[in-house]
Amino acid sequence: MKETYINQLEANQTITIILLVKAKDVKSKKSGEPYLSLLLGDKTGEMDAKMWDNIEEIEGTFERDDFVKLKGLVQIYRNKPQLTIHKLRRCRDEEVDFSDYFPKTSKDVEAMFAELLEMTSTLRNPWLKQLLEVVFADQEFVVKFKQAPAAKSLHHAWLGGLLEHTVSLCKLCRLIAGHYPEIDAELLFTGAVLHDIGKTDELSYSRSFNYTSAGQLLGHMILELEFVGRKIAGIPDFPRELSVLIQHLIISHHGEYAFGSPKLPMFPEAQLLHALDNLDSKYEAMKGILQGDRNQEGDWTGHNQMFGRPLFKGSSRNGYEPDKDA
Amino acid sequence: MKETYINQLEANQTITIILLVKAKDVKSKKSGEPYLSLLLGDKTGEMDAKMWDNIEEIEGTFERDDFVKLKGLVQIYRNKPQLTIHKLRRCRDEEVDFSDYFPKTSKDVEAMFAELLEMTSTLRNPWLKQLLEVVFADQEFVVKFKQAPAAKSLHHAWLGGLLEHTVSLCKLCRLIAGHYPEIDAELLFTGAVLHDIGKTDELSYSRSFNYTSAGQLLGHMILELEFVGRKIAGIPDFPRELSVLIQHLIISHHGEYAFGSPKLPMFPEAQLLHALDNLDSKYEAMKGILQGDRNQEGDWTGHNQMFGRPLFKGSSRNGYEPDKDA
Amino acid sequence: MKETYINQLEANQTITIILLVKAKDVKSKKSGEPYLSLLLGDKTGEMDAKMWDNIEEIEGTFERDDFVKLKGLVQIYRNKPQLTIHKLRRCRDEEVDFSDYFPKTSKDVEAMFAELLEMTSTLRNPWLKQLLEVVFADQEFVVKFKQAPAAKSLHHAWLGGLLEHTVSLCKLCRLIAGHYPEIDAELLFTGAVLHDIGKTDELSYSRSFNYTSAGQLLGHMILELEFVGRKIAGIPDFPRELSVLIQHLIISHHGEYAFGSPKLPMFPEAQLLHALDNLDSKYEAMKGILQGDRNQEGDWTGHNQMFGRPLFKGSSRNGYEPDKDA
Amino acid sequence: MKETYINQLEANQTITIILLVKAKDVKSKKSGEPYLSLLLGDKTGEMDAKMWDNIEEIEGTFERDDFVKLKGLVQIYRNKPQLTIHKLRRCRDEEVDFSDYFPKTSKDVEAMFAELLEMTSTLRNPWLKQLLEVVFADQEFVVKFKQAPAAKSLHHAWLGGLLEHTVSLCKLCRLIAGHYPEIDAELLFTGAVLHDIGKTDELSYSRSFNYTSAGQLLGHMILELEFVGRKIAGIPDFPRELSVLIQHLIISHHGEYAFGSPKLPMFPEAQLLHALDNLDSKYEAMKGILQGDRNQEGDWTGHNQMFGRPLFKGSSRNGYEPDKDA
Amino acid sequence: MKETYINQLEANQTITIILLVKAKDVKSKKSGEPYLSLLLGDKTGEMDAKMWDNIEEIEGTFERDDFVKLKGLVQIYRNKPQLTIHKLRRCRDEEVDFSDYFPKTSKDVEAMFAELLEMTSTLRNPWLKQLLEVVFADQEFVVKFKQAPAAKSLHHAWLGGLLEHTVSLCKLCRLIAGHYPEIDAELLFTGAVLHDIGKTDELSYSRSFNYTSAGQLLGHMILELEFVGRKIAGIPDFPRELSVLIQHLIISHHGEYAFGSPKLPMFPEAQLLHALDNLDSKYEAMKGILQGDRNQEGDWTGHNQMFGRPLFKGSSRNGYEPDKDA
Amino acid sequence: MKETYINQLEANQTITIILLVKAKDVKSKKSGEPYLSLLLGDKTGEMDAKMWDNIEEIEGTFERDDFVKLKGLVQIYRNKPQLTIHKLRRCRDEEVDFSDYFPKTSKDVEAMFAELLEMTSTLRNPWLKQLLEVVFADQEFVVKFKQAPAAKSLHHAWLGGLLEHTVSLCKLCRLIAGHYPEIDAELLFTGAVLHDIGKTDELSYSRSFNYTSAGQLLGHMILELEFVGRKIAGIPDFPRELSVLIQHLIISHHGEYAFGSPKLPMFPEAQLLHALDNLDSKYEAMKGILQGDRNQEGDWTGHNQMFGRPLFKGSSRNGYEPDKDA
Repeated sequence: MKETYINQLEANQTITIILLVKAKDVKSKKSGEPYLSLLLGDKTGEMDAKMWDNIEEIEGTFERDDFVKLKGLVQIYRNKPQLTIHKLRRCRDEEVDFSDYFPKTSKDVEAMFAELLEMTSTLRNPWLKQLLEVVFADQEFVVKFKQAPAAKSLHHAWLGGLLEHTVSLCKLCRLIAGHYPEIDAELLFTGAVLHDIGKTDELSYSRSFNYTSAGQLLGHMILELEFVGRKIAGIPDFPRELSVLIQHLIISHHGEYAFGSPKLPMFPEAQLLHALDNLDSKYEAMKGILQGDRNQEGDWTGHNQMFGRPLFKGSSRNGYEPDKDA
Repeated sequence: MKETYINQLEANQTITIILLVKAKDVKSKKSGEPYLSLLLGDKTGEMDAKMWDNIEEIEGTFERDDFVKLKGLVQIYRNKPQLTIHKLRRCRDEEVDFSDYFPKTSKDVEAMFAELLEMTSTLRNPWLKQLLEVVFADQEFVVKFKQAPAAKSLHHAWLGGLLEHTVSLCKLCRLIAGHYPEIDAELLFTGAVLHDIGKTDELSYSRSFNYTSAGQLLGHMILELEFVGRKIAGIPDFPRELSVLIQHLIISHHGEYAFGSPKLPMFPEAQLLHALDNLDSKYEAMKGILQGDRNQEGDWTGHNQMFGRPLFKGSSRNGYEPDKDA
Repeated sequence: MKETYINQLEANQTITIILLVKAKDVKSKKSGEPYLSLLLGDKTGEMDAKMWDNIEEIEGTFERDDFVKLKGLVQIYRNKPQLTIHKLRRCRDEEVDFSDYFPKTSKDVEAMFAELLEMTSTLRNPWLKQLLEVVFADQEFVVKFKQAPAAKSLHHAWLGGLLEHTVSLCKLCRLIAGHYPEIDAELLFTGAVLHDIGKTDELSYSRSFNYTSAGQLLGHMILELEFVGRKIAGIPDFPRELSVLIQHLIISHHGEYAFGSPKLPMFPEAQLLHALDNLDSKYEAMKGILQGDRNQEGDWTGHNQMFGRPLFKGSSRNGYEPDKDA
Repeated sequence: MKETYINQLEANQTITIILLVKAKDVKSKKSGEPYLSLLLGDKTGEMDAKMWDNIEEIEGTFERDDFVKLKGLVQIYRNKPQLTIHKLRRCRDEEVDFSDYFPKTSKDVEAMFAELLEMTSTLRNPWLKQLLEVVFADQEFVVKFKQAPAAKSLHHAWLGGLLEHTVSLCKLCRLIAGHYPEIDAELLFTGAVLHDIGKTDELSYSRSFNYTSAGQLLGHMILELEFVGRKIAGIPDFPRELSVLIQHLIISHHGEYAFGSPKLPMFPEAQLLHALDNLDSKYEAMKGILQGDRNQEGDWTGHNQMFGRPLFKGSSRNGYEPDKDA
Repeated sequence: MKETYINQLEANQTITIILLVKAKDVKSKKSGEPYLSLLLGDKTGEMDAKMWDNIEEIEGTFERDDFVKLKGLVQIYRNKPQLTIHKLRRCRDEEVDFSDYFPKTSKDVEAMFAELLEMTSTLRNPWLKQLLEVVFADQEFVVKFKQAPAAKSLHHAWLGGLLEHTVSLCKLCRLIAGHYPEIDAELLFTGAVLHDIGKTDELSYSRSFNYTSAGQLLGHMILELEFVGRKIAGIPDFPRELSVLIQHLIISHHGEYAFGSPKLPMFPEAQLLHALDNLDSKYEAMKGILQGDRNQEGDWTGHNQMFGRPLFKGSSRNGYEPDKDA
Repeated sequence: MKETYINQLEANQTITIILLVKAKDVKSKKSGEPYLSLLLGDKTGEMDAKMWDNIEEIEGTFERDDFVKLKGLVQIYRNKPQLTIHKLRRCRDEEVDFSDYFPKTSKDVEAMFAELLEMTSTLRNPWLKQLLEVVFADQEFVVKFKQAPAAKSLHHAWLGGLLEHTVSLCKLCRLIAGHYPEIDAELLFTGAVLHDIGKTDELSYSRSFNYTSAGQLLGHMILELEFVGRKIAGIPDFPRELSVLIQHLIISHHGEYAFGSPKLPMFPEAQLLHALDNLDSKYEAMKGILQGDRNQEGDWTGHNQMFGRPLFKGSSRNGYEPDKDA
């Protein structure tokens, strides 16, 4: 763990710190001489920094998404720290602990993955079980699956977020399958496991979160169709009818054409998968917005673009919560 | 229970049967003489009937939504029975068992209502508990609440359907509150109990299902606001903040302006109430459509207007259901 | 009346002035020391102000929406005045004349209200007359009704604006009822009086204009339903059919689901109320935009967000106005 | 006036009557022989008719939209008269009184037109006055203007309906110009006179109402632009700026792109013209629907396609109309 | 070729004819006895037929989509032939010439396919060339590709229609690539060849045209992704970047989310492929509608559902066509 | 040609240069004294400039859209040049070469216009030929037609752009008319020539590109209807049917109500004109966006507002372009 984080800096300190370069610009002073303007970050925040002198030799030694070790003077402007850089050098990845730099799930990744394997192991439909086992046996995939966020922003936008959302959705599917016992619980569960796995390739997340070119051009639904298709092709005699149902679950789970689903849910398990994915994503997004705003004055967040409305922070703050007055 | 139902009739029988008048017309034969054309029904279906002679004295003795006792000859045309009426007289309501004539929940109404009271009795927030107790103590309301359908058509469109949908939603809310423990489970539960109770007055359902004038002009959300407002007014010192949250839960539960919600869900419990109400309504509607079509040939229903697409009947009919090959 | 207003300030004056605090921030100089950054206003405009020194003792003595008495030096930057504050103290409300600080209707509030009472007094339907009399007898309501704006922005967004818009709409309704004599003029008039009265509680306007929490969660239509419902409950034997019509007039007056009407106008008076409310609001909004832009160069306003288009200022400026060449 | 109208026919009469041919088909009996199937009408309704024998010589002597004199036997089927034709011959237009065959305004056409001229004569803007005088001096136009309906269906869909709607709109514009004295009342009035005059060519209405090919391909707004453009071209030195305003009033009066306005109202007079045209059209449409349904049982019309909802017939039928209990 | 087609039948003939069964119902006479009601067709049209007697032994011997040989009496009703069946037996497929029964392209299928191979042979990009060669070497695919219609209805809805539309689009792409020489003509051509090939499996067309279950659940875009993916997997070292571009061309070619494209065109070749596919489909659809209506009276088709408007038949029928007055 | 362009300026130069004034503001220094803030431009870009002293006598001598000759010192800030003005005087238009200041088509205007005349000369329909000849004989129009851009921004937004787009569209129409030989090629070509000519008056482009008041109020479609109408009126006996078709081609060419077409394409030539205009506009817009972004890092442009998505720059940069590896 790092010794100092951005949110701990105080004015007029001289510090030494390793940070991630999030943006890098060479600009001109009024005299015409170049200076370096950087946006630096760690998991606690971001900070502007300038290096005014002797930047010619250093400017070409690092790029955006590199780590750099800096020495400089901290000042505070509009409540935010700024750094005047005295010295700077690029670091190798080995010198840093990635978890100091990227937002990450607060849950235990290995425990969540084990939970998923455990749920999978109880399947009785041999084809579905075999398919998920083959997927989870793909080590290259599993490494990415444990790391990927569930979205670039909006909900579960942190390392491990894809796994966290997947496990939450799988559990919701099992609850709902208990409530509506006539549905095919295992088909629904399989859809939940697979519904977003293409995000491992749609997004890049080794440094900042972004879309890959393939992700932008095809989207995670098409990418996971490809991936699942290859896995199914490797299972002899996998029933065509079943694979069509799985493909439909995948491509219909956004539930609306406008959100990129080329087909809308056409059977109960597809309808429920869409409804529960939507419920979990929107709930976590709302929760995140309210938490991010909890230190702001007033009972209302500002107008939220995702929801198209302001959100109310006061539903659990009025003295009538039953669970707390026991 | 009746001796004969419409779906049991065979060609060339002469029968005596009591049926509900669903439509009544006096038409003219080519000769200019009047005859009677009726649409008759019981819980198993509908049937056309004609009375050709001597209708003057009988024509004014009954109306739509009356029960009539008929004697006549059954014929089959395009696979549907038709009746040529020989004799007809109006029946009093006491002569019939209503459950023979109206679709009705297959569940035990009293057991469901007891379940609701039981869930209510566990509330710890005294205001919410008192509010629901006052609601359930209103006998005039309870009688209607046990009888009303949840919709004119689409989902739970049968006597007792409102109660059935309400209980299902309450249970879903409790499952989801277990999954997201940070929410106010009792506020969500209260919203679930109250969200559709205005349907007791929005619809008329003592005979055929229809909208009342007040229901058409105001809708069930406004009607239940009025009703809940009166109940709250009777509870001394009921906190204004809490009543505003309850009112918001009610008016936002359709989740979209286009579906008549004047406000969209602005806090997590409102968001979840909308999502789960939507999930339960759409799931039951889809289930109903598939069941209604189960005897039709082919894997697909026709284009369904509510969903805007055909539905697939084959998701649980392909030999790979895990629960059945154990 | 104040001696000096913001729109009269000149560069390089040292002034003493009382202003309303519209925003308050404590920021850091490059040295790390705090300074005070304020947005101040009166009814003629807004102005930035900075206090650079000795702010520790003064910073905690006032908040947003307080009045403060300031001494300082005026400078002009980009055609707008700025203030460097030398001295500052909080004022009590009694020290100021509110009308100096808030935009206010240019019409006579008492005269408009008298006009409304006069129109009401001519009603011949005893129920409608009694209802409006009860409403206007509620002093707590009347105080707010005379003060409230008709909207947070967009149209009639000034103190007294609700009353001004209401009177204008009532007169329009009477004109139109003369044009279409077959309609129920008194029902339409009653709808016009009541259609926006919930804005007295939807908005806060004792200082800056904003939504209340109840206003945001429920909207003025639901708030006025509650209010009118209470008044009707106090009138013995008020006909249920008539109260349903009044409720429908209220909830349908926005005329579109997307604007928060849970029901659309279903009878002629409701249709006309919506059409005339829309006409008056849009006309006044357009008039306000054109007036606000009248000193800007050119025949066009910029793209206007409410109308989704630029507006033309030249329709009455081309030398062919008949009324002026007489 | 005719001696007999369709809505007076009784069963088993043999009648002689002149009717308009609204549809004409030659069909085959089972034997392969041809028979004639007609839809006939007058201003009171429509009726099916068949001619079974000897149709070869008569079949080619008349077409749709001709008048025919018929002798035959009336029968009643499903409450509607039917005619078995014994003899038929085509009539010349001179043999009939057109007003017996086409729905027509109940108002006095010449009086309405005089009212329009009178309002025009008071204009003080010389350009607008001259333009309208030139328009009303075009006898070919005036003949059509007095005859045309305001729409193929929906509102004012009867002979003289265009004039009736135009006069109503002109009066509304004058009322509203009194209410908002700052607007250019004469520009608004001119827009009202001209806004729909292209309907004289968009529709064909000498027999049944329909679109002309030019009307379908261009619409009345483009047709009236052409017409007004020709009239303006004939007035020396007509100001270009004024003609652009008039053109804008014409093309923006539908108020929405989706209703064929290529530009939306961009100044107050255009905004008001659109709002009042919309108000008058929708009000008259709603009135027509309610009147057409006044003999149907129940308080509700069926679902109305134009409004997208059922309409309530009871707003003036509940015993609380002030004007009637005086 | 058949001796007799439906559109040649005359009244009162006794005929022997082989037709395709398009619908089959067993109904009841008033007496309760069953009779057979069929819809029969060949490529020239459809015809109702009834068999009244002795249907018990024949009823189970054939199904919808079978061919039957019939003897019976023709009658004409409402200008359409009807058949009273005297004798009926099922035929084997070998007894008929399919081209007598199904609408089929008027072009030479083998010549069109050769044209496609010829265009493919000129490709210089080795990967694209190899991919298309592999596709065209798949005999199972090619058989279906030569037979499939381009749509269930709307445009090119005939056997061979898919090939016809594909060739037309390929040629349009080559014309446009000549006009905009900077684009990658071969990438665009490849997209054109592959854009609809999934229709070979989305539709069933061996008898009547319909959707397959996989077609309904996945759509032709997903089906062709699968197919193309398998072909690419068989080409060693096919560049991943190129396959992503091809996949994007396929999934974006509908150009709008609402038409099932999960991604919208993001580079020029994708934009052009969408525009030209749209142009060819809409043009051919419009041409088909106008041709289908060419014998109807009047200059206008009825309201067309696909285009949402009536179409004008007169654009080339007004005596001013330059090509004809030479 | 100018000696110096904005994109060639270097830091710390003292220069003398003539530039176009694109915006002009008088602002106040902190001292209250005025200074001049200008936005200056030539065809290579834009630059901020300040004049700090003695501006009183110079400030009133020039306006926006004037040319000024400046002497001053160049500095570079954030990679963009800034000018501190020492001397400034207004220039007369004759002192400058307009082509130094405005973006202009890279094609030869006279050659393009000759191409258009040449294509026109081959028409065989005498009416269409005569109409276009009359249009091209209008010298006042032709001067503007050779100069106008095709749009204010988005596509072909440069001097000569309207002609460039028109010629491109005419050629596309001829290619497509070859592909679909059954259409009326000359009607389509005439539509292509005329479809945007109203842009000569909708836009102002003698200096910066903008909408005229008539352009904003009426749009280019209405303006060209007027213009074409006048030309047709001058041709004796021009067939009314043909002029209606031409008017329809003009007003329907945007293809959607939302884009200002009051009628949608109703015959094949109108459908094709719309499709090809759309194809050419969107293709050129996309090409322009990609070219404007070609020096930016990465394979993607930012989110593009016109297309509603980012665009991919890599479709022709992956080493598999067939045309280049020959």
